[in-house]
Amino acid sequence: MKYPPVHPTVEGMMHGGDYNPDQWLHMPEIIEEDFRLMPLAHCNTFSINIFGWSAIEPEEGVYTFAWLDDIMDRLAEKGYHAILATPSGARPAWLSKAYPEVLRVEADRRRNLHGQRHNHCLTSPVYRQKVKQINRKLAERYKGHPALKMWHISNEYGGACHCDYCQDAFRAWLKRRYDNRLDKLNAAWWTGFWSHTYTDWEQIESPAPHGESMIHGHNLDWKRFVTDQTIDFYRNEIEPLRELTPEIKITTNFMGNYPHMRPFLGLNYRKFADELDVISWDSYPGWHGEKQSTEALASDVAFVHDIYRSLKGGQPFLLMESTPSLVNWHDVNRAKKPGMHELSSLQAVAHGADAILYFQWRKSRGSSEKFHGAVVDHVGHEHTRVFQEVAQLGRTLEQLAPVAGSTVEADVAIIYDWENQWAIDDAQATNNIDKGYASQVQSHYRSFWKHGVPVDVVSMNDDISTCKIVVAPMLYMLKPGVAEQIEAYVKNGGTFIATYWSGIVDETDLCFLGGFPGPLKPVLGVWAEEIDSLYKHETVPFTWNGDTYEAHSFIERIHLKGAETIAAFQGGSSPTPAVTKNRLGKGTAYYMASANEQRFYDAFYELLINEHGLASPIAASIPTGVSVQTRTNGEYAYTFFMNFSEYEKRLTLNGEKKTIHGETINQVTLRPYGWEVVVEAI
Amino acid sequence: MKYPPVHPTVEGMMHGGDYNPDQWLHMPEIIEEDFRLMPLAHCNTFSINIFGWSAIEPEEGVYTFAWLDDIMDRLAEKGYHAILATPSGARPAWLSKAYPEVLRVEADRRRNLHGQRHNHCLTSPVYRQKVKQINRKLAERYKGHPALKMWHISNEYGGACHCDYCQDAFRAWLKRRYDNRLDKLNAAWWTGFWSHTYTDWEQIESPAPHGESMIHGHNLDWKRFVTDQTIDFYRNEIEPLRELTPEIKITTNFMGNYPHMRPFLGLNYRKFADELDVISWDSYPGWHGEKQSTEALASDVAFVHDIYRSLKGGQPFLLMESTPSLVNWHDVNRAKKPGMHELSSLQAVAHGADAILYFQWRKSRGSSEKFHGAVVDHVGHEHTRVFQEVAQLGRTLEQLAPVAGSTVEADVAIIYDWENQWAIDDAQATNNIDKGYASQVQSHYRSFWKHGVPVDVVSMNDDISTCKIVVAPMLYMLKPGVAEQIEAYVKNGGTFIATYWSGIVDETDLCFLGGFPGPLKPVLGVWAEEIDSLYKHETVPFTWNGDTYEAHSFIERIHLKGAETIAAFQGGSSPTPAVTKNRLGKGTAYYMASANEQRFYDAFYELLINEHGLASPIAASIPTGVSVQTRTNGEYAYTFFMNFSEYEKRLTLNGEKKTIHGETINQVTLRPYGWEVVVEAI
Amino acid sequence: MKYPPVHPTVEGMMHGGDYNPDQWLHMPEIIEEDFRLMPLAHCNTFSINIFGWSAIEPEEGVYTFAWLDDIMDRLAEKGYHAILATPSGARPAWLSKAYPEVLRVEADRRRNLHGQRHNHCLTSPVYRQKVKQINRKLAERYKGHPALKMWHISNEYGGACHCDYCQDAFRAWLKRRYDNRLDKLNAAWWTGFWSHTYTDWEQIESPAPHGESMIHGHNLDWKRFVTDQTIDFYRNEIEPLRELTPEIKITTNFMGNYPHMRPFLGLNYRKFADELDVISWDSYPGWHGEKQSTEALASDVAFVHDIYRSLKGGQPFLLMESTPSLVNWHDVNRAKKPGMHELSSLQAVAHGADAILYFQWRKSRGSSEKFHGAVVDHVGHEHTRVFQEVAQLGRTLEQLAPVAGSTVEADVAIIYDWENQWAIDDAQATNNIDKGYASQVQSHYRSFWKHGVPVDVVSMNDDISTCKIVVAPMLYMLKPGVAEQIEAYVKNGGTFIATYWSGIVDETDLCFLGGFPGPLKPVLGVWAEEIDSLYKHETVPFTWNGDTYEAHSFIERIHLKGAETIAAFQGGSSPTPAVTKNRLGKGTAYYMASANEQRFYDAFYELLINEHGLASPIAASIPTGVSVQTRTNGEYAYTFFMNFSEYEKRLTLNGEKKTIHGETINQVTLRPYGWEVVVEAI
Repeated sequence: MKYPPVHPTVEGMMHGGDYNPDQWLHMPEIIEEDFRLMPLAHCNTFSINIFGWSAIEPEEGVYTFAWLDDIMDRLAEKGYHAILATPSGARPAWLSKAYPEVLRVEADRRRNLHGQRHNHCLTSPVYRQKVKQINRKLAERYKGHPALKMWHISNEYGGACHCDYCQDAFRAWLKRRYDNRLDKLNAAWWTGFWSHTYTDWEQIESPAPHGESMIHGHNLDWKRFVTDQTIDFYRNEIEPLRELTPEIKITTNFMGNYPHMRPFLGLNYRKFADELDVISWDSYPGWHGEKQSTEALASDVAFVHDIYRSLKGGQPFLLMESTPSLVNWHDVNRAKKPGMHELSSLQAVAHGADAILYFQWRKSRGSSEKFHGAVVDHVGHEHTRVFQEVAQLGRTLEQLAPVAGSTVEADVAIIYDWENQWAIDDAQATNNIDKGYASQVQSHYRSFWKHGVPVDVVSMNDDISTCKIVVAPMLYMLKPGVAEQIEAYVKNGGTFIATYWSGIVDETDLCFLGGFPGPLKPVLGVWAEEIDSLYKHETVPFTWNGDTYEAHSFIERIHLKGAETIAAFQGGSSPTPAVTKNRLGKGTAYYMASANEQRFYDAFYELLINEHGLASPIAASIPTGVSVQTRTNGEYAYTFFMNFSEYEKRLTLNGEKKTIHGETINQVTLRPYGWEVVVEAI
Repeated sequence: MKYPPVHPTVEGMMHGGDYNPDQWLHMPEIIEEDFRLMPLAHCNTFSINIFGWSAIEPEEGVYTFAWLDDIMDRLAEKGYHAILATPSGARPAWLSKAYPEVLRVEADRRRNLHGQRHNHCLTSPVYRQKVKQINRKLAERYKGHPALKMWHISNEYGGACHCDYCQDAFRAWLKRRYDNRLDKLNAAWWTGFWSHTYTDWEQIESPAPHGESMIHGHNLDWKRFVTDQTIDFYRNEIEPLRELTPEIKITTNFMGNYPHMRPFLGLNYRKFADELDVISWDSYPGWHGEKQSTEALASDVAFVHDIYRSLKGGQPFLLMESTPSLVNWHDVNRAKKPGMHELSSLQAVAHGADAILYFQWRKSRGSSEKFHGAVVDHVGHEHTRVFQEVAQLGRTLEQLAPVAGSTVEADVAIIYDWENQWAIDDAQATNNIDKGYASQVQSHYRSFWKHGVPVDVVSMNDDISTCKIVVAPMLYMLKPGVAEQIEAYVKNGGTFIATYWSGIVDETDLCFLGGFPGPLKPVLGVWAEEIDSLYKHETVPFTWNGDTYEAHSFIERIHLKGAETIAAFQGGSSPTPAVTKNRLGKGTAYYMASANEQRFYDAFYELLINEHGLASPIAASIPTGVSVQTRTNGEYAYTFFMNFSEYEKRLTLNGEKKTIHGETINQVTLRPYGWEVVVEAI
Repeated sequence: MKYPPVHPTVEGMMHGGDYNPDQWLHMPEIIEEDFRLMPLAHCNTFSINIFGWSAIEPEEGVYTFAWLDDIMDRLAEKGYHAILATPSGARPAWLSKAYPEVLRVEADRRRNLHGQRHNHCLTSPVYRQKVKQINRKLAERYKGHPALKMWHISNEYGGACHCDYCQDAFRAWLKRRYDNRLDKLNAAWWTGFWSHTYTDWEQIESPAPHGESMIHGHNLDWKRFVTDQTIDFYRNEIEPLRELTPEIKITTNFMGNYPHMRPFLGLNYRKFADELDVISWDSYPGWHGEKQSTEALASDVAFVHDIYRSLKGGQPFLLMESTPSLVNWHDVNRAKKPGMHELSSLQAVAHGADAILYFQWRKSRGSSEKFHGAVVDHVGHEHTRVFQEVAQLGRTLEQLAPVAGSTVEADVAIIYDWENQWAIDDAQATNNIDKGYASQVQSHYRSFWKHGVPVDVVSMNDDISTCKIVVAPMLYMLKPGVAEQIEAYVKNGGTFIATYWSGIVDETDLCFLGGFPGPLKPVLGVWAEEIDSLYKHETVPFTWNGDTYEAHSFIERIHLKGAETIAAFQGGSSPTPAVTKNRLGKGTAYYMASANEQRFYDAFYELLINEHGLASPIAASIPTGVSVQTRTNGEYAYTFFMNFSEYEKRLTLNGEKKTIHGETINQVTLRPYGWEVVVEAI
């Protein structure tokens, strides 16, 4: 999709990270040293006060802003940008002691003790009031401060509370959703099963391991409520900020999912995104791991970048947290090898980031994250490999300043949807160990990534009308209007690809009657009768376009209802279709009846890419392990060549190009983990 | 053993399943469609109201039987059989809200919230009263109804409650068991160990993870109490039914154990069986799995069928639940391959089933079991592979109508005992990962299954006097009278086979003093001094009858005390016996000092089978993977040939035979998963 | 180190075990039989009353000592030694019922029910009073009794309680530790991180899974408190004993850690040891397991013996519990093969034990440990392999009587420190699956064990000034004074070996600033910049002394700051050092930047052993699998040769020697699991 260029928050690229001087107030020499080191690291942006509540309000109603004033002033003096955090992510111990209702209650209905972080009730009136109060104090104090460039709301929102306040809020939410009609709720959740029919709203509680846990509509609605209640909590947080500093943009840092590199699943970020001015996220892939090649992981990281970029119509995002070296919470914590830090940071830029920020500027001296990578190590000086690689990246980002504000234009959309993921994960069916939704989507994505074809990754309700190709693997759930939108898209000439286990349930997890893929039957022209699940290492071959490929994991027995077979499973007296093609209006819809090996997707999408003229215009062929990605601002196109392999790679360009360094080249040679950026006027 | 033929509940075979129209009351067209489809599926029997409580009593004391009247009438109109369920397995939410005492308390003493099913207190006076009340309503309403053929009490009883009511009931039970004498209890549980002596009945509670968990006599008595309390609950349920409908037979559906195919272990079904008129059970083996060959799983399923048939003296049982295709709660849910549905259903018939019933007739639209296989799929019509295979089986069952009421005559009994299993599983000894009792019994069983020799699987106190061979692997526990019965059996000419870890403890898990196998020493003529546990893949060879075999897992060092050695372990300067033989009176007792490979059991029992003239009279030799099983009603013998392999198999019969289809054959050719039934007048 | 010889508690070696006649009071014939069997087993020492509380105080304030009087008298009559236990390890049920506060509260703040053992609150005033009371009764009754040789306090102290009493005690302990200053505590725990600053002592609680769990200083201090509170509980126990029987020595039985053979980690035994007169411990290695060779396990067991011997300056210890055959709580419980019982028992003696005692004399008839190995089996007579091996060992111990009281003289010390282990295990860093501290220490230890070089295993604060070699693997934490002591030791001519991940944190887990290895930098002459963690099976080669070795698991990137490189990692343009050597004053300090294969340690320490003239003087070379260990009493040296392999082994001695049996030999031939002891006058 194409989006208008965006006015960036600051000029050029942001570089820096979480800065926690509140840990060092008793060692002022450390803070002095920080401000000596910051320019050496070529940093210009710092997120502050994230865990500062105890330091700015050590007793209820007693405020100690002096240290924060000092830091803000110092930042302003250097011309640096402050991303100022509201401190609700970790409240002071006195607050829990005075108001125990702020402590979160877990699904087992046990109230937590004070400890850790991200552990508050989402509904507690007292906590909301205390948060709004401290946020107001911050806004009052720092509105107009030259360092203040953005608000960082709380930190990594996540989790749920099951206290009585939240139970009441959940019931109120359900009443709104079901028009105050229990019969609608009973029908939507199919409570007739196992005699679960509710006859009074008070009978409904949140899911619990020792209570109700197997009504999927109930589970789904609870997850939806948690997203909505988190947004509601967030709205309460930002109220004084919007009032007092309307010109300051607001973000909150989203998360990833590990060890499998995917977006965080606890909240529907697609919905949350509408509330933010700018998307930001915290990315901690485990480079040099043992489960994936560097190339495969790079593709998965790119996928997540593309999701977060697509959340707000392609608008640039911030890499709010990352590590310059290693983390301390993976099972095995590997240091990034030389070059990987710059390469992986520029990958974020190539996919739409205008900021590379770290957790954290300086390693803590104690407590749980003291061994998490940081710009400044415990040794305290700048003469470390990590500091020097950060400084080197800082210089590169200064060169890339013109890229800020530009975006990525994609003709391909892949649908990856939070609510679909929730419903699939919760389903009791097929393979209860792993249904593989995200990995299947990532496998389809990877074929485009390998070919240097930009992709938007969108939710099922997003507008797809301007796309040339739309891929929607395992679209198990179809919310209202989705099938209709897809049908219109295809009729208008779109190319649509669906797979097994699509069109199975509606938005409350009720199965479509009359045959799968439900409302997508007319578009796809098939009926999926049965699905079988294979054991690991079991495969079934099929032939397509003269080559034989392996299907694995899930095989559907489908029947043609208008489509034609373009590949069929081998074996058996009456082979069933593996891949079908259905022409509808001006468009085409494909259906894949199985999970297939990567090699098939690569071949299949290569054909489609060529048919649609989407092949990368800048290089004739892209070697394995190399990613090519372009950002554009309407005037210039910036193409990033990135070598995610352990070998030197070479690309021949379609003519002479200028690099970001001013060189003219017609060939790009990339050392292992090397990169190049080429600029072209459009 | 031989049993008199039984008058079957209905004429011919029952075919059908759980029918839950209460889920579809808002879609009457679905119910219309059900009654159109039932004859097409050749079904004639439906279990109804299993989860109907909310639908027949939506508010306390408000009854809405109209829909159930309608279903009963429609069934009667078609001449179908209704197995009418009492609905206690899943109570309405209003009942939990009004009487929280009905909610089960787990071993950690936490009371559950309302949710799921099978989750009520076994003792709660209110719940017992409410259950009896609704059961009385049902009996009053449907007594004499032409559709009513059987009562289905609750659903899959299981689990335990640890509330104060149950604690009191447990203490009362203990007082009865130990003649109100704490000294007897202290001695039986050996509480002197770890200073556990009880000095007041009130000091005793049920086992708890955070309380007492390591007194084995205590654990055993708790399990016994749970069985007795479940039976007591059941007796309360059936009271109004016996009063009002004395002519209607009563069953409750027993369960299996998965993924290892064994009987359910939570309740002593041997004891429960005495309370039922008819045994029924729910069977969900994971055909086409990756851990076992089809043949091995078939043998394990046969073993469970034989247990359940033996529970009531060989009386035919009902397969109350099974799936026509797949389930949705295995790790990997595989569809049955073509032919497997009929083959596995007929296997149940061959082992004594008079009914093949499914969970469920029609797939639910929502909630947790919507992807569980059913006769009618979400697509709603009859043109599916699964529906057609069900209809095909229905036609076959119609042909097999004369088989109904016949039984299996076995000269071999294998002892598999619930209380012995409990005691072995709870013992801290030998191998704490897996003591392998059930798998060892199944291994001995398999040798007979392969040879087409019918077997009764009985508990240790059951009468064995008429058997030719009795096998009792790992008879760790000997309850009073058991050793005496075995001794009498052998002296009277019986052949008895015992193994390592036999005669170790009495019924409260107190070790026999004076040498193992305790009271079995005179019968077996050996003293078992020590047992060693081997690691996986470790083996010890021994030679028997000219061939060498491997022992594994457990090796006992035994000494002859009257027996003779017929096989000895290799290695060491003084090899100890592996297998011994003891002649006592007119009989013989064998002792196997180790767990042995299947090949040894096959060879050993082949010899015994031939010595006792038990080889199948109908076929000279049975190919691998083929099961041969006979039912007889005193007039005719029905012999089932079943091919549980992926290859075509052929058997030469001992002369010309008539098939159930009327053909005359002297050879049986079975396609993969194929079967044949031969009828002979006796 | 050299220690003065110690006056042993009794003449000669103790042999016997836990004797629990209180389980058999209702079967007096069993007790008669016990006293017939004791001399046949060559036993002379029995620990009694360990679980006797219910038997001596069946009701509150009602005492029934008659049976215990009888046992004490019988023991005295035979000239046997009684180790009399205080019974606090398992209180009677009436006590829990009357005073629920004695029940332990777990970390999740749930109070346990009565059950099992070792489950009391450490602080409860009532429990302390009740324990002191029963202990006083025992001391009053048996002071001066001729059988009474030692007190056995409670049993295997361990675990913690989180009740309100314990919370208060923890806060009081913290106030003492931090001079009643919260700012000191906040700084020490680095609570500024995540806004954890405490502003009131009442805000602090013990760590909890649902509360605070990630402040490492907090976790560490809690573990320290638990050790101190256990000692405090112990002091309360022994008060009446010290008062009434000041001449009777006191011990409590320490534990090991399984399945990895290491010391128990729950309490800092180094600190606890100061409170005891004699060290005793319970050893249950899993001989003949599948994870380790016999040799490797023997080395690990030797390591633990050496720790416990070193706890009180080399003073002989008691093997308070062991099994003559097998245990019943390993995953797979293997019987000791013939010879292993004597060999493993003599290994304890060789490393400093003056007693070989068993759990237990006679197998219980019921409850959880009835299948645990014992001298007398359920069969009840002496004609078992196990009884005979015990008797054989008894005869050997009688021959070894002169060894009692002698000790081991070691010139090598290895630092293995409880608090360092706690801190490393709790750290979130490097490899969160396994940081391998203990196994790394055991790997260094093994090189000395293979060479027959005696080793003291000490804590970091212990005096090392007289050692020739000190090895301190992974000295992550440096408590005050430790670096200074090491520096002085090296300057005075000592040889010191350190490894990666040393000098990282201080005693509250705050990182040293200014570069690792922190205060050890001057001694070691290196700066450790970064640490990388490798996946299993990944290795990095380095060359030393002409041979190539593999590093694994952890690799540090270090820089020379005065040291020289003696081995460097291969690969990369600028190879970094793998092993360095730093001369300081008269001594030398080595640093190993990685975890290395055993072969390297063996080669490296062989060189060092030879340089320091520490090679075993008695045999020119020691074959693989053979352990050589010497005890000395100033007059005689007793050298034990022990074959921990499955093959016959031969050693040539340096001249003619006398065996303990009086033979003269110049060569030792050891059958598999065989042993020999040689005596030399010094």
